[in-house]
Amino acid sequence: MEEIKDTQYVVGIDVGGQTSKLGVVDARGDVLAQTVIRSDTYGDDAGAFISALADAVKKVIKEADKEGQIRGVGVGAPNGNYYTGEVAFAPNLAWAAKKSVKFAEMLTKKLGGLPVCLTNDANAAAVGEMTYGAARGMKNFIMITLGTGVGSGIVIDGKVVYGHDGFAGELGHTTVVQHNGRTCGCGRTGCLEAYCSAIGVAKTAREWLEMSNEPSLLREVENITSKDVYEAAKEGDALALRIFEYTGSILGRKFADFIAFSAPEAIVLFGGLARAKDFLYEPMMKAMNDNVLNIWKDKVKIVFSQLKESDAAILGASALAWEL
Amino acid sequence: MEEIKDTQYVVGIDVGGQTSKLGVVDARGDVLAQTVIRSDTYGDDAGAFISALADAVKKVIKEADKEGQIRGVGVGAPNGNYYTGEVAFAPNLAWAAKKSVKFAEMLTKKLGGLPVCLTNDANAAAVGEMTYGAARGMKNFIMITLGTGVGSGIVIDGKVVYGHDGFAGELGHTTVVQHNGRTCGCGRTGCLEAYCSAIGVAKTAREWLEMSNEPSLLREVENITSKDVYEAAKEGDALALRIFEYTGSILGRKFADFIAFSAPEAIVLFGGLARAKDFLYEPMMKAMNDNVLNIWKDKVKIVFSQLKESDAAILGASALAWEL
Repeated sequence: MEEIKDTQYVVGIDVGGQTSKLGVVDARGDVLAQTVIRSDTYGDDAGAFISALADAVKKVIKEADKEGQIRGVGVGAPNGNYYTGEVAFAPNLAWAAKKSVKFAEMLTKKLGGLPVCLTNDANAAAVGEMTYGAARGMKNFIMITLGTGVGSGIVIDGKVVYGHDGFAGELGHTTVVQHNGRTCGCGRTGCLEAYCSAIGVAKTAREWLEMSNEPSLLREVENITSKDVYEAAKEGDALALRIFEYTGSILGRKFADFIAFSAPEAIVLFGGLARAKDFLYEPMMKAMNDNVLNIWKDKVKIVFSQLKESDAAILGASALAWEL
Repeated sequence: MEEIKDTQYVVGIDVGGQTSKLGVVDARGDVLAQTVIRSDTYGDDAGAFISALADAVKKVIKEADKEGQIRGVGVGAPNGNYYTGEVAFAPNLAWAAKKSVKFAEMLTKKLGGLPVCLTNDANAAAVGEMTYGAARGMKNFIMITLGTGVGSGIVIDGKVVYGHDGFAGELGHTTVVQHNGRTCGCGRTGCLEAYCSAIGVAKTAREWLEMSNEPSLLREVENITSKDVYEAAKEGDALALRIFEYTGSILGRKFADFIAFSAPEAIVLFGGLARAKDFLYEPMMKAMNDNVLNIWKDKVKIVFSQLKESDAAILGASALAWEL
């Protein structure tokens, strides 16, 4: 990065299902100023969301006192397309669930021509992890983001895989239950995301509570979230612990399939649900090693992101902007 | 390939479970001379097989009258490792099923120092298809070989994916049946290969014949092979047709998962079982499109190899040798 002047800065934006985080980043990877806006209060009006986002970008640049010194904006968004700059058919974003939105182009206009580069949020996280985090020095790894949904960024030979159309790496929508699986946000059934996202874990809890009379701390909770299941597991709640064992086993089994594809050095986990690593790690490792070919048994690491969650997404997205 | 002199030639070897094909290839991709030897009559004695192979290589070079003009030897072998030149834990090769064999090194010695480059047989087929066949001009595709086993070669951005350890692309050993699946040659259960290889199709036939009294031409056949099922389907046999529908559906469903990984332009099919394309194509396409995310519906092609089967494997393997 020697060619990057110290006086130049980039903006990283992480667009999530509920909120979007953005920040001004310097060449050393320090986040100088950051803020958060809602992503889920604009209905299907993409223009309104992008306007609000542009306002927040201007505000945060001003806050960091770097007006006129911004090289570009990197965006990580669900179903974000690196080639076209569009966000298309993203189940978790109401304003892009049923259509394709020219996100990069629209944001550039709202920012007075500032160049914008866009990719999948999970690809952005992978770039961040490769540059600053747990995947430093790795050329082959798979990033799995366990958040509202399950995302993935695949790195092969040091490069993010974009595929023929820019949409590669949708591992959250590979199938784990073939018949009578849960409905997924994407409209299909049985996807990994329907079981192993934050929402999936909460669904498992509700299903299992209904199916038995087993005592559990979770019976006292209204509108159970994955965080509630995590808190209960920390208290030693048997049902909550089994929910993470189940979730970890499903993840590990799918990791075995992913390994057969790209033979990575490691699977890197990131996102809100990855905080439950103490409960997920063992069942994940066991299921993964029980299901891989002999050549990969006990060879592939599962590691957890080393970056602060908010920073990682912003840093990853911002790293894209250095290439503008 | 301008730098390659017309007076230089390469040898391509395709190591299969039952037989190995080898040939001398010129810079235009013409196979000048070729032969076949058995791969399955050497027990676990890798040295004996490699000696026989070296003798066949010398013979075929002599037959083509190109002694002293061979640049190198390219080998495609199940579980062949591009990085190390080893063939390791290949379930379908008795002499490498339980151990790692230094194949490239041993063959080089037997050939008086001629350089040998080795990869997975399916990766070699992918290179052949990209250079001379159905994948010409494609930068992102997945080659699936439907033979004794199910192999795969994944091409991303014009390059074969080898992964961290050289073993990437074992899609035949991703899981299609989670519980009580068929035993696979690899020692696990429920693999794609256990259902959709030539052996898998024959197994389906035997299972289904036992499960009902439905009349079928196949009831007259002893030791049913996939070829028998194909012949019966051509005669309009209802059971045989349903076997291909079942096989095609399983393949299509898994293709949907593979597409979520690398977003290829096409899936390219090759191998003995791919000859049944008239019976496999429709159920494959339907299952694939029923199971992909909306962004890929009706977007990904399924194409069949355009090369003569024996030539394709030899050409693919030989293409590796040009880089030596």
